[in-house]
Amino acid sequence: MENFSYHNPTKIIFGKNEVDRIGSEAALYGKKAIVLIGRGSAKKTGLYARVISSLNMYSIKSVTYEGIKSNPLYEDADEAVQFAKEFGADMVIAVGGGSVIDTAKAVAMGFYVEHSVWDFYLQKSKPEKALPLINILTLAATGTEMNSSTVLQDTTGGMKKGFSSPHIFPKLSILDPTLTYTVPADYTAYGIADLIAHCLEVYFGKGDSPLSDHYIASIIKLAVEYGPKVIAEPENYDARANIMWLATNALNGSLVNGKGNGDWGSHLYEHTLSVLYDIPHGAGLSIVFPAWMKHFSEKFEHKLAFLAEIVFGIHQGTSQEKASAFITKLEEFYCSINTPVRLKQAHIEETEMNRILENLKINNVSGRVYSMNENDHQAILEKMW
Amino acid sequence: MENFSYHNPTKIIFGKNEVDRIGSEAALYGKKAIVLIGRGSAKKTGLYARVISSLNMYSIKSVTYEGIKSNPLYEDADEAVQFAKEFGADMVIAVGGGSVIDTAKAVAMGFYVEHSVWDFYLQKSKPEKALPLINILTLAATGTEMNSSTVLQDTTGGMKKGFSSPHIFPKLSILDPTLTYTVPADYTAYGIADLIAHCLEVYFGKGDSPLSDHYIASIIKLAVEYGPKVIAEPENYDARANIMWLATNALNGSLVNGKGNGDWGSHLYEHTLSVLYDIPHGAGLSIVFPAWMKHFSEKFEHKLAFLAEIVFGIHQGTSQEKASAFITKLEEFYCSINTPVRLKQAHIEETEMNRILENLKINNVSGRVYSMNENDHQAILEKMW
Repeated sequence: MENFSYHNPTKIIFGKNEVDRIGSEAALYGKKAIVLIGRGSAKKTGLYARVISSLNMYSIKSVTYEGIKSNPLYEDADEAVQFAKEFGADMVIAVGGGSVIDTAKAVAMGFYVEHSVWDFYLQKSKPEKALPLINILTLAATGTEMNSSTVLQDTTGGMKKGFSSPHIFPKLSILDPTLTYTVPADYTAYGIADLIAHCLEVYFGKGDSPLSDHYIASIIKLAVEYGPKVIAEPENYDARANIMWLATNALNGSLVNGKGNGDWGSHLYEHTLSVLYDIPHGAGLSIVFPAWMKHFSEKFEHKLAFLAEIVFGIHQGTSQEKASAFITKLEEFYCSINTPVRLKQAHIEETEMNRILENLKINNVSGRVYSMNENDHQAILEKMW
Repeated sequence: MENFSYHNPTKIIFGKNEVDRIGSEAALYGKKAIVLIGRGSAKKTGLYARVISSLNMYSIKSVTYEGIKSNPLYEDADEAVQFAKEFGADMVIAVGGGSVIDTAKAVAMGFYVEHSVWDFYLQKSKPEKALPLINILTLAATGTEMNSSTVLQDTTGGMKKGFSSPHIFPKLSILDPTLTYTVPADYTAYGIADLIAHCLEVYFGKGDSPLSDHYIASIIKLAVEYGPKVIAEPENYDARANIMWLATNALNGSLVNGKGNGDWGSHLYEHTLSVLYDIPHGAGLSIVFPAWMKHFSEKFEHKLAFLAEIVFGIHQGTSQEKASAFITKLEEFYCSINTPVRLKQAHIEETEMNRILENLKINNVSGRVYSMNENDHQAILEKMW
């Protein structure tokens, strides 16, 4: 085990109808909130009205910034910062999935500076403080609701950039699984692919941490168990609740304890697909990760074999056979919940190869543990068709 | 899954030689510390001098309260509160195991009140604030280093009482596995029995939480794997590090998420043994828990069978056979690390039966899920000889 520090001060309120506690909880942080939402679903489902009503009950005034895209743009965050400043917000409330929360983190930091929030992501500036952030999560996927990271996009420059700071740990995230009943089957599946990818990034990281390895295998095993249930029965509370809690645990920092870091090469690789084709992040990951594992499988055969045993109960065969079986079974699982495993399924044809390779090269896409050069980029890409 | 709230703000610094960060970390909380230690080992090993030297480097003045017993007394905590008040402490630093940390939690609360700390444990008073608490852990066992609970004892009244408050979450706990190299084999084993018992208490609690069940099984599995290693090689860093991290995770509140609560009947039962015979808590638990599981096994056969599969890899046989095999295998494991599974091994003879039963009755010992009456007390006790 490697030395580590761990500190996660985010409070979680989890469960059926807990969303109605937003007013009383927000009252702890002030009287004026900027509320961030995406492009329609929070209003359509009535959730937005429910939130505003709860805030009103506690005399919390709000201004709303609407229209955050599923691959969120820093320009939108900058605009929301202006709303927040003009309004004199005491707090930021995100109602949505990872894109809304990641934007809200940027707004919370941006409130206290005069430059674009993008400067944080470009490592040109560091926040010294941030507005308190409260989230009402509507999509089980990214884990941002319980960590200190945010990823935004710059469409003109073709870049997706991440940023972390202890100042942007949410104060509170309300996880009400009933809010995910209306998430369509495709985005439900992409969220599951995303949470599994987070587990795998950490798993293939630096250093040994047996507890982490067992936790990771447990999360993937349960995702594989509850994934088909939640697709088949979108209003199955138990299935929705399990998937939601798995996604949070997959990226709340606890899994990396005892490891030096995760690899994150597959995520960077996927960012290229998101930027070039606006493909949903989780869908990109279910394509990239199997190809990446096949490419590097000789380097961590025993680790793949361990997952084969725990996740899929495969106890027969050599280590190599188990390793290979894990990747195959994982692809089969992705297919069963209809998240793509090949680029063609996302309507990206071989003619795009050079464009993708060029973007990977420009962005120096590589992992922290398993470095990738142009040959690796190409070999991995060829496995995606 | 049940609804729940989770909030654990304790920072963990984990790893080899991290103890030397105490000075710089403590400087965040003030200039004057009351340092609490037990009965000798911190001084004997040089740890105490190392801590004071690091505090001196950051100009932190300290006063030391020494002599906390392994079943800690509230009277000692009251005395330490007086030390802290006279000194005008800004913070409490505990250097030791669970008993020292639990006393330190009492001191942190007691600093701001005029009454005995015991009034908190008797539910006569609630703390409104507490001094910041920093721990340097020297024994892997209770998990108190990352939770908001404390247990103290009142010898005259024959009572052991627990108390919880969000104010006594430690600000920081430094977990340096090398500090546990000198823990003797018996206390190392009792610590392992303690951490397994914490997992089991939560496991047999109210409600279903599949992720929690898998995490619990993982912790017990790794305790069974690393337990014999750490006993055989007390200076095996990897084994010490794993056991230390397992113990913290077994009772940091994360396992109960999605469950209503743990059972905790076995712990209360064990408190009677500790109070009457000053038997180490972990040793008492390795005697009580198997007997308790045998007594109630019909009520949770499938849960025992699940543990048999994950922890001991037992995939053959009926659910009843697996359930029974789990208890047997766990007893064998306890025997292998020399923590007792029968009262006679702790030199408690059958002639003590009435005395024990009377104490159990006086204290209304029962579980939150599996209630116990006098017949249950006796049937369980008979299984301990």
